[in-house]
Amino acid sequence: MNSNIPRMILGSNHMDLADRVLAKDKRAAARLITLIESEEEEAYEQLGILHASTGKAHIIGVTGPPGSGKSTIVDRLAKKIRAKGKTVGIIAVDPTSPFTGGAILGDRIRMVDLTLDEGVFIRSMGTRGHLGGLSRAASGAVKVLDAFGMDVVILETVGAGQSEVEIVSHAHTTVIVEMPGLGDEIQTIKAGIMEIADIFVINKADREGADKTAMEIQAMLGLNPEKPEWEPPILQTVARTDQGVDVLLEKVEEHYKYLKASGKFEKMVEMGIREELNTLIRGHLNRLADDMIDREQFDKMVNDILARKIDPYTAASQLVEDIENKLK
Amino acid sequence: MNSNIPRMILGSNHMDLADRVLAKDKRAAARLITLIESEEEEAYEQLGILHASTGKAHIIGVTGPPGSGKSTIVDRLAKKIRAKGKTVGIIAVDPTSPFTGGAILGDRIRMVDLTLDEGVFIRSMGTRGHLGGLSRAASGAVKVLDAFGMDVVILETVGAGQSEVEIVSHAHTTVIVEMPGLGDEIQTIKAGIMEIADIFVINKADREGADKTAMEIQAMLGLNPEKPEWEPPILQTVARTDQGVDVLLEKVEEHYKYLKASGKFEKMVEMGIREELNTLIRGHLNRLADDMIDREQFDKMVNDILARKIDPYTAASQLVEDIENKLK
Repeated sequence: MNSNIPRMILGSNHMDLADRVLAKDKRAAARLITLIESEEEEAYEQLGILHASTGKAHIIGVTGPPGSGKSTIVDRLAKKIRAKGKTVGIIAVDPTSPFTGGAILGDRIRMVDLTLDEGVFIRSMGTRGHLGGLSRAASGAVKVLDAFGMDVVILETVGAGQSEVEIVSHAHTTVIVEMPGLGDEIQTIKAGIMEIADIFVINKADREGADKTAMEIQAMLGLNPEKPEWEPPILQTVARTDQGVDVLLEKVEEHYKYLKASGKFEKMVEMGIREELNTLIRGHLNRLADDMIDREQFDKMVNDILARKIDPYTAASQLVEDIENKLK
Repeated sequence: MNSNIPRMILGSNHMDLADRVLAKDKRAAARLITLIESEEEEAYEQLGILHASTGKAHIIGVTGPPGSGKSTIVDRLAKKIRAKGKTVGIIAVDPTSPFTGGAILGDRIRMVDLTLDEGVFIRSMGTRGHLGGLSRAASGAVKVLDAFGMDVVILETVGAGQSEVEIVSHAHTTVIVEMPGLGDEIQTIKAGIMEIADIFVINKADREGADKTAMEIQAMLGLNPEKPEWEPPILQTVARTDQGVDVLLEKVEEHYKYLKASGKFEKMVEMGIREELNTLIRGHLNRLADDMIDREQFDKMVNDILARKIDPYTAASQLVEDIENKLK
């Protein structure tokens, strides 16, 4: 009986995690994000409670290849936002780290004065299980910090193709960080990444080739036949010495104003909710299927597929039909 | 009426794509893979027909960071396999190219004599839509080439964390290609990648630092407390000059024999089928949900979520309950 006590205590703490987040309890926020990462049922209930208090933060996505200095840029931005009296949450996500989970990015190199600042919350996340899970967890963590009352939430992720695109899709303003002189290996700026960029930053611009990289990005943007309403500026920074970061923050704020004034912000939020709702519905159905599939029947099908008596497509159809019949 | 004719002709061609693949028609194989990429219903029917003829090919996964020389290694391997009188299919997948789709990797740099060889089939794929789709399409393409009768199918993908792990999960033997002197940026060899490696290759081993890289990999492997049955060899190659590729092929064949002799091969195939069946069932249910969701109700929920009258989690539960009630 004794062994139940800690769990009960933990349980009762969970119960009011959302309320504690709303009361600006950072440890509650951290714990809720951990629950979200583990995809605990409880986490969704707490997120449900928090929903009413979300929608106020400006969410900024920052992405780019390893070594481009993303984290330094994020830290500099955060300090400048703090200097304006605003609070900042930082979520650093590393989708290239499949199984380790946790503190790869972020904790390592963060500025100490930032981590000690009461108005700042920093968290790093790695992949647990599959990619969709990480993007979902990142989105949940953003919501927690939004509900917590952070004026700005920065979602930082390392460039890795489709995964970074999925993760920064939760941001209002997306900053792509590059560096000069990638030469042949400028494979990092791919078509899909170009499309999601609201602002380009060439960091380490004191190195040779910054202007050339800027021109290359400009040329790639020029390939777009339609002239977009918002033309992504291409900035040069040296985050290490704080050079150009003020201009970056200005542009970030300008983009936010543009989104609000043009009505794009509302549309963006609505699209996000549609997608989230679809994802949640799919999750529900998958769990439903797990519960309803006849395991014996499933194993029999696997053996028949192995023996090539049936193909996997026909087998799946039959198993789904069984589920439908059960629901009837 | 006239406008229907081409579709009918196309339709009847689709009808026997599987038969044509079995008759070793390369154009049919190429067309079926295109259908698979577009996730056409028809593609699954054809794959269903092909299933009985699959399971004979040795599937080799080759992955590594951009610039490591994966494609050259794959080409060299393919030529050596051909020289032994075996046929080879190559599927080059680039998950870091989210929206462009198609010929990024592969076509660019492939050896001409390889592409002219009757016993070789080469195809490149990029991401269309989301990542799960790409991994599924790659798996489908492997099946087509397996059923076609290719003795070996090489699945080549560029290193990008979780996505490459998902894609090479369809292979029996996984080769990780690295290069010397990545120094600080040896972030590419991540925990998750280490775990899936059956063979390590340090390509461009004529550059400085190859031995150091080999030692680093050895040290990382040493961190594993359990001694694995198969200890991944760490090879050095210079694919450009063909140095070390013979040994690589030997090790690949040795690994295949080990899988067969140890009974791991059978287990691996069974696991793959279990996963595929689960994925297919989920796909079915998602399509079912798309059909059954009341769009008006869905739109109303979106508006209520936006107005913060309801949270997304509760809304999703209610919509799923509606689907369940409809099925009853």
